[in-house]
Amino acid sequence: MKFYGWGYEDQTVSDQEIREMEAIWAKTLGIDSFDVTPAPTLEEIKIAPPRVMPPLSLAHITTVEKYDRLAHTYGSSIHDYARAFLREFSNPPDIVAYPENDGDVSAILDWCGSVDVAVVPYGGGSSVVGGVEPPRDPRYRGTLSLDMRNFDRVIEIDPVSEAARIQGGVFGPHLEEQLKPSGLTMRFFLQSFEFSTLGGWIATRAAGHYATVATQIDDYVQNLRVVTPAGICESRRFPASGAGPAPDRMFIGSEGSLGVITEAWIRLRKRPQFRAAATVRFADFYVGAEAVRALSQSGLYPANCRLIDANEAAFTGAGDGTASLLVLGFESADQPINESMRRALELCADYGGEVDRKNEASGEAHRTGAAGKWRDTFMRAPYYREHALARGVMRETFETAITWDRFKSFHADFMAAIRKAVEDITGRPGLVTCRFTHIYPDGPAPYFTYHAYGDQARLKEQFWHLKVAISAAMARLGGTITHHHAVGRDHREWYDKERPDLFGRALRAAKGVLDPHWIMNPGAIVDRSPQV
Amino acid sequence: MKFYGWGYEDQTVSDQEIREMEAIWAKTLGIDSFDVTPAPTLEEIKIAPPRVMPPLSLAHITTVEKYDRLAHTYGSSIHDYARAFLREFSNPPDIVAYPENDGDVSAILDWCGSVDVAVVPYGGGSSVVGGVEPPRDPRYRGTLSLDMRNFDRVIEIDPVSEAARIQGGVFGPHLEEQLKPSGLTMRFFLQSFEFSTLGGWIATRAAGHYATVATQIDDYVQNLRVVTPAGICESRRFPASGAGPAPDRMFIGSEGSLGVITEAWIRLRKRPQFRAAATVRFADFYVGAEAVRALSQSGLYPANCRLIDANEAAFTGAGDGTASLLVLGFESADQPINESMRRALELCADYGGEVDRKNEASGEAHRTGAAGKWRDTFMRAPYYREHALARGVMRETFETAITWDRFKSFHADFMAAIRKAVEDITGRPGLVTCRFTHIYPDGPAPYFTYHAYGDQARLKEQFWHLKVAISAAMARLGGTITHHHAVGRDHREWYDKERPDLFGRALRAAKGVLDPHWIMNPGAIVDRSPQV
Repeated sequence: MKFYGWGYEDQTVSDQEIREMEAIWAKTLGIDSFDVTPAPTLEEIKIAPPRVMPPLSLAHITTVEKYDRLAHTYGSSIHDYARAFLREFSNPPDIVAYPENDGDVSAILDWCGSVDVAVVPYGGGSSVVGGVEPPRDPRYRGTLSLDMRNFDRVIEIDPVSEAARIQGGVFGPHLEEQLKPSGLTMRFFLQSFEFSTLGGWIATRAAGHYATVATQIDDYVQNLRVVTPAGICESRRFPASGAGPAPDRMFIGSEGSLGVITEAWIRLRKRPQFRAAATVRFADFYVGAEAVRALSQSGLYPANCRLIDANEAAFTGAGDGTASLLVLGFESADQPINESMRRALELCADYGGEVDRKNEASGEAHRTGAAGKWRDTFMRAPYYREHALARGVMRETFETAITWDRFKSFHADFMAAIRKAVEDITGRPGLVTCRFTHIYPDGPAPYFTYHAYGDQARLKEQFWHLKVAISAAMARLGGTITHHHAVGRDHREWYDKERPDLFGRALRAAKGVLDPHWIMNPGAIVDRSPQV
Repeated sequence: MKFYGWGYEDQTVSDQEIREMEAIWAKTLGIDSFDVTPAPTLEEIKIAPPRVMPPLSLAHITTVEKYDRLAHTYGSSIHDYARAFLREFSNPPDIVAYPENDGDVSAILDWCGSVDVAVVPYGGGSSVVGGVEPPRDPRYRGTLSLDMRNFDRVIEIDPVSEAARIQGGVFGPHLEEQLKPSGLTMRFFLQSFEFSTLGGWIATRAAGHYATVATQIDDYVQNLRVVTPAGICESRRFPASGAGPAPDRMFIGSEGSLGVITEAWIRLRKRPQFRAAATVRFADFYVGAEAVRALSQSGLYPANCRLIDANEAAFTGAGDGTASLLVLGFESADQPINESMRRALELCADYGGEVDRKNEASGEAHRTGAAGKWRDTFMRAPYYREHALARGVMRETFETAITWDRFKSFHADFMAAIRKAVEDITGRPGLVTCRFTHIYPDGPAPYFTYHAYGDQARLKEQFWHLKVAISAAMARLGGTITHHHAVGRDHREWYDKERPDLFGRALRAAKGVLDPHWIMNPGAIVDRSPQV
């Protein structure tokens, strides 16, 4: 896998694809031509020798090889890619570990605790919030990146309860591959699906394919097995329980700060047999949002309910830029969902939504037309990130959730704040767009994207200034700092403000029990001593 | 309100109703006639003077009156009623407080912390698991029962997001009454609805009306405001968030051990306009369970999906005892649900389920027929509890959740274990029945009821021996010790076994922060020092 970008070395976008995308970037940002910074090569990068060496007892599952250390230095944000393209690898992990079982993880945590080495759990490295970055904290003698890739098996499938016991390090495609013979599926198709892991999804409270009902990973977890520095914490496997505060909810979203999720029983479902997809045009984004509100409160539970504003529709090629598009989908393994779609479209029509007949006609509308086009772009997007960066094109996303009563003013003010930040910091306007990723009866999860043309020598700083200005606006305007990207190190400042102080203190005390040497992912979620 | 039974003094079941019920009990348990222990009167009861007196500063919101202390000595289990009918009130709270606002609650917690008085938060007193009982712990100088009845308002309704900000002490009917003008409803119709509170539902992880999707209170909570001894902990109001472990989930199910829930934003919905109800007969309970499994995994989301075994159907008058009944209901505020019902009945037919045409015909089937009859009995049941007890008739319920793959053997073994316990402990067979209260794609929440005829002088001991034997069987056979009745003091032993040890230790550390003097509901959830 690339140490500086998305996916494998041999998975690249073609020259043709790059030329097409360059044209879009150029048009969008008003640039004539791009200088291209070449991707870094292994040989170019100088890194310091490891500050600490693994003990002999861990030699078979650890390495201090340059490639491994470089490949575990960063996640996948543009802040990360900017530094990689600057050839800046000043804080790599000292050791990379590839444990093969719970005993290995325990042994690693034991050793790290005994010698003050920080442990950063590492799944696919897809974090866009600095979640897998080694801490810069003089209290630690070094950092070990704990790569879970060997925990890649579906251990047991329970076809009766539609659930499976799955190891935490399995990547999305390999997970589905192993489930396939059973006819069951998780269908947790987040954008990082190819290069992120089940354990990572749980640790970061990722959200998946479904726009309603089973949105966040929280709903999929039946139980957890977590290796902590204090021992193994394994919850019982029940469909539900009312016995005290839910144990799993402390670990879901703990971002590696409490332990390593090595296994979970996960709720699955049968593969859908019935599908309906449609695209609905709304002249006005806010009127489209009102239609989506009605849908969210209708009890119809669409699988897909992605309102895309006109500019985003145009940018991704899904629309012509004159209207917002609502990509609507229903699916079921049990019964035709035509009636649900009929009623959903009727609701949309109440708000002036017009069905895009081109797309509606085909039973394969979910694969073709605006929906299909949009999805291809969506899954392909991470591959373009490094090529954008190499050309000074920054693309960042901010996602949140907010109640319907506040949505309109929030959206207007937040869009304006992003536009202003882009202009202030890069000196030129960018493209700022919005779509809904998930919807709830009480509010949407809107997802904002900016494209901006930066100064190639200062992308790292510009990114960070944008991050700060836009995150501050998010906090000021009242959206949660993250709906599914997680907190990591990049969102910590605003997460700390959002989190009830007493809950933070309680969590710190809980961490003190599970991680008595405070080695687990320092900088994530809670700190050893109160923030100063 | 009665200090020894359910509801108000003037809400009694009529002599006629009692005669009818007596006949059922007599027939069920093979008894010729009952001796009736009269209900206790205030005058009969002797209690010790309070061991501690409230300070002058709290005089206006506290009392040490005998009635108030008696009325806050017990919850509503038969263990509680048995002791009340024995005139045994040896451990009443010393003080009862009726705070009117958060400041009052804080002042009470402050004072209690400073003088080592235990605080037992009290909603409607409907606990059937010893949740509101004063601890017997010599480390405390006394107990204060903190009655939340003055926190009875819906403060604010957000009709756009379909949510309301509601005080923790409001009883079910008064809550719905205040919502009514808005057209919104919570529809959280649990059996204790009349005499339990929103705060109590949250603290105990109660489950409500809906058999699928929005089952437990966990799904309704948008945010919480909790007054803890360390200060006020208030979470933000979002439709969803992925920012760290969910703060509310630590308090949901904390059973008064971490603080007092004084307010919450709660998710609501529009009143249903479309309803469909049907009753389906299954000759075999397990085949009925298979049909319910198919329904639970179909994505049809029935509002009601209550499989009632033949004996329970007969006992409640809903059936004739020859078949299990599935009471099936769909409801929607938005669209007709006939198609969902049609498909659900088709699924049932695949398993040999036969629709009870008598009930199906009427659009009002949810109010009449087996469904209506069953519901009336359900909501009325708590009123009979004290009359049963007065006649030596014990009726207890055990509820759990278990994955489908283990359900059949669990059910068979658990039913046998209850039957055996009843025979061993009372010396005669009882009636043991089962129904499903809620269903999940991965398993049902089965609910078991026994009726047993005990020795009136020893009901208290007999109840407890039954509780221990049956709970031990529950733990041994692998069901969670509670799906929605909570842990209280009565389930602590098995809860402690079920809860991951490390999570318990983490929770204890968290409690140490929120409740530094360990005054909040001692005996509930976690103890100051490890269990011995």
